[in-house]
Amino acid sequence: MNVNRYEENPLVTPSDVKPHRDDFEVIGAFNAGIARYKDEVIMLLRVAERPLSDDPNIVKAPIFNTETKELEIMEFNISDKRYNFDDPRTIRKADDLSQFAFLTSLSYTRIARSKDGRNFTIDPAPFYYPSNELESFGIEDPRITQIGDTFYIYFSAVSPVGVGESMISTKDFQTIEHHGMIFAPENKDVLIFPEKVNGKYYALHRPVPKSTGNPEIWIAESPDLLHWGNHKYLLGLREGMWDDGRIGGGAVPIKTDKGWLELYHGASKDNRYCMGAVLLDLNDPSKVIARSESPIVSPEADYEVNGFFGNVVFSCGALVEGDIVKMYYGVSDTSMACAELSLSEILDSLTSLIEA
Amino acid sequence: MNVNRYEENPLVTPSDVKPHRDDFEVIGAFNAGIARYKDEVIMLLRVAERPLSDDPNIVKAPIFNTETKELEIMEFNISDKRYNFDDPRTIRKADDLSQFAFLTSLSYTRIARSKDGRNFTIDPAPFYYPSNELESFGIEDPRITQIGDTFYIYFSAVSPVGVGESMISTKDFQTIEHHGMIFAPENKDVLIFPEKVNGKYYALHRPVPKSTGNPEIWIAESPDLLHWGNHKYLLGLREGMWDDGRIGGGAVPIKTDKGWLELYHGASKDNRYCMGAVLLDLNDPSKVIARSESPIVSPEADYEVNGFFGNVVFSCGALVEGDIVKMYYGVSDTSMACAELSLSEILDSLTSLIEA
Repeated sequence: MNVNRYEENPLVTPSDVKPHRDDFEVIGAFNAGIARYKDEVIMLLRVAERPLSDDPNIVKAPIFNTETKELEIMEFNISDKRYNFDDPRTIRKADDLSQFAFLTSLSYTRIARSKDGRNFTIDPAPFYYPSNELESFGIEDPRITQIGDTFYIYFSAVSPVGVGESMISTKDFQTIEHHGMIFAPENKDVLIFPEKVNGKYYALHRPVPKSTGNPEIWIAESPDLLHWGNHKYLLGLREGMWDDGRIGGGAVPIKTDKGWLELYHGASKDNRYCMGAVLLDLNDPSKVIARSESPIVSPEADYEVNGFFGNVVFSCGALVEGDIVKMYYGVSDTSMACAELSLSEILDSLTSLIEA
Repeated sequence: MNVNRYEENPLVTPSDVKPHRDDFEVIGAFNAGIARYKDEVIMLLRVAERPLSDDPNIVKAPIFNTETKELEIMEFNISDKRYNFDDPRTIRKADDLSQFAFLTSLSYTRIARSKDGRNFTIDPAPFYYPSNELESFGIEDPRITQIGDTFYIYFSAVSPVGVGESMISTKDFQTIEHHGMIFAPENKDVLIFPEKVNGKYYALHRPVPKSTGNPEIWIAESPDLLHWGNHKYLLGLREGMWDDGRIGGGAVPIKTDKGWLELYHGASKDNRYCMGAVLLDLNDPSKVIARSESPIVSPEADYEVNGFFGNVVFSCGALVEGDIVKMYYGVSDTSMACAELSLSEILDSLTSLIEA
């Protein structure tokens, strides 16, 4: 696969982003949703910030208080045996390491704009910021689907009661309407198709079941984008392959003559995140036609291998111009990058799953 | 709380139910959905059956094969170190005890009918039996909401890809229409309200999040019963109380002058399942008005304390006649029982959660 990484990569890094508070630092500007609006490319960044700490024995956790509409900063001493601080991203209860109790950073969305898709200017203020109790730990990994003149933006809403997927919409990237949580916990990596198929909207989603089952890709239907049903299991892990740990949708599905092309992320059991592709039936996207045997993009460049959480390429959006797929992607949970791939080369690389 | 357990309890036991195959035995007839149809009380039993085994070293697991429409029986030798057989209900992989890999029984639904609500006759054949890949491990804990002349029946659909909630409907308890999975994994204990509230259908549901959060009760809205959205967190665990382990909706919400009364189950951390009650706002059921401090029914009778999985009272349906609530409930994951309670006494027992 020919992968033409931009010379300008990484396009946006944490140091390019001014923190939204003087007592915070930006540790990530990554996993951005992508849209074209007027003559600009919009990167809707997930910005992760954490409270500055001058005492290495104190770990801080920011929480949005729904009542006061203010951030509260909790402080933990790393000698506190009730908690575990091994993962710098989370604080866990010592008696239940399977779940996180707090996050050490707060994520929100912020716009980066560009005329050429390579050089971006970052808005001085947040775009959408946590606003309700289901977002008190932050909002993550936005995707954007344009339908008509409306941009539907959906993201992981994180709070102590779980991680679900909520949706807002905008027509101008200024005024925002909130549509509530559209997929209940635990769910992430939702992708809404850009048009109805046979009279119904479709979305990919990624439940994380607990009692049995894996983090895999499902598909659902909707009459109105707000209410979803007829959930079907779509795409699973592949034992021993690059996507045997967890998978989830990436970019908004791309309509091609051969079917809906979805660029998805797959992680191995040792958490190396690559991008692959899957082709879904044009008239019934719950049918899988073909799939990547090998990743189309793997973490190889320095900025993809090294960072806050290294060895991650994770796309939340792509732009298509003729045969060129401009895949924007987060790298190492830190920065944003872009690479150009050939649409026909991706399609030709897929292995058919339909019996002859 | 005055709890008038029927003298006839348990009303249905596994020995009352003929297995649907000669090579199976019935181990549970419990957690039944309840409806009135014509002049009968319908108990839609969850019947659990397991393959007979004459070799104590062999554990069998029945799986519905979607292609052949037949049950396949897998066999495991208890000396197989790849698996763990400590829980008689499940087979787990030895290297991941947090999830089950197979179930040792298959659950399906079967009708028990009664003229007096106390003496039941059990239909000779299954009512709804697993029919698709999301039900290959069985279907569990049905609930029934009557709206107009249609009975909506929804249940946990269990398969290797997760546990979600699917729905069928019937007008006559003979012809069945399948509506697919309405709540994606992991979800159980769905309850659809019996009428629209302010133009929208409502349902309680019980996600089981993995990364953070607990098995608690959420509420969702729908325009059509098939597609659900605007998920909100409704009711949580209470540390140190009888419902500090897991909670979930029980009977279909009962409309009263004071609000929607929901009889819900709560389990303690040591898995003692009791029934409690919560009152929701009549015009906005996402608002909690009052809640039981103590259980309204706890496992006390012998058939509630002892059984396949003891110390469980678990209601999936109740009938209301004036002030009398006839709460039908599964006992010890084994049999069915019924108790009469006073509606006004339940309402009076609740502790208000609205600030004066």
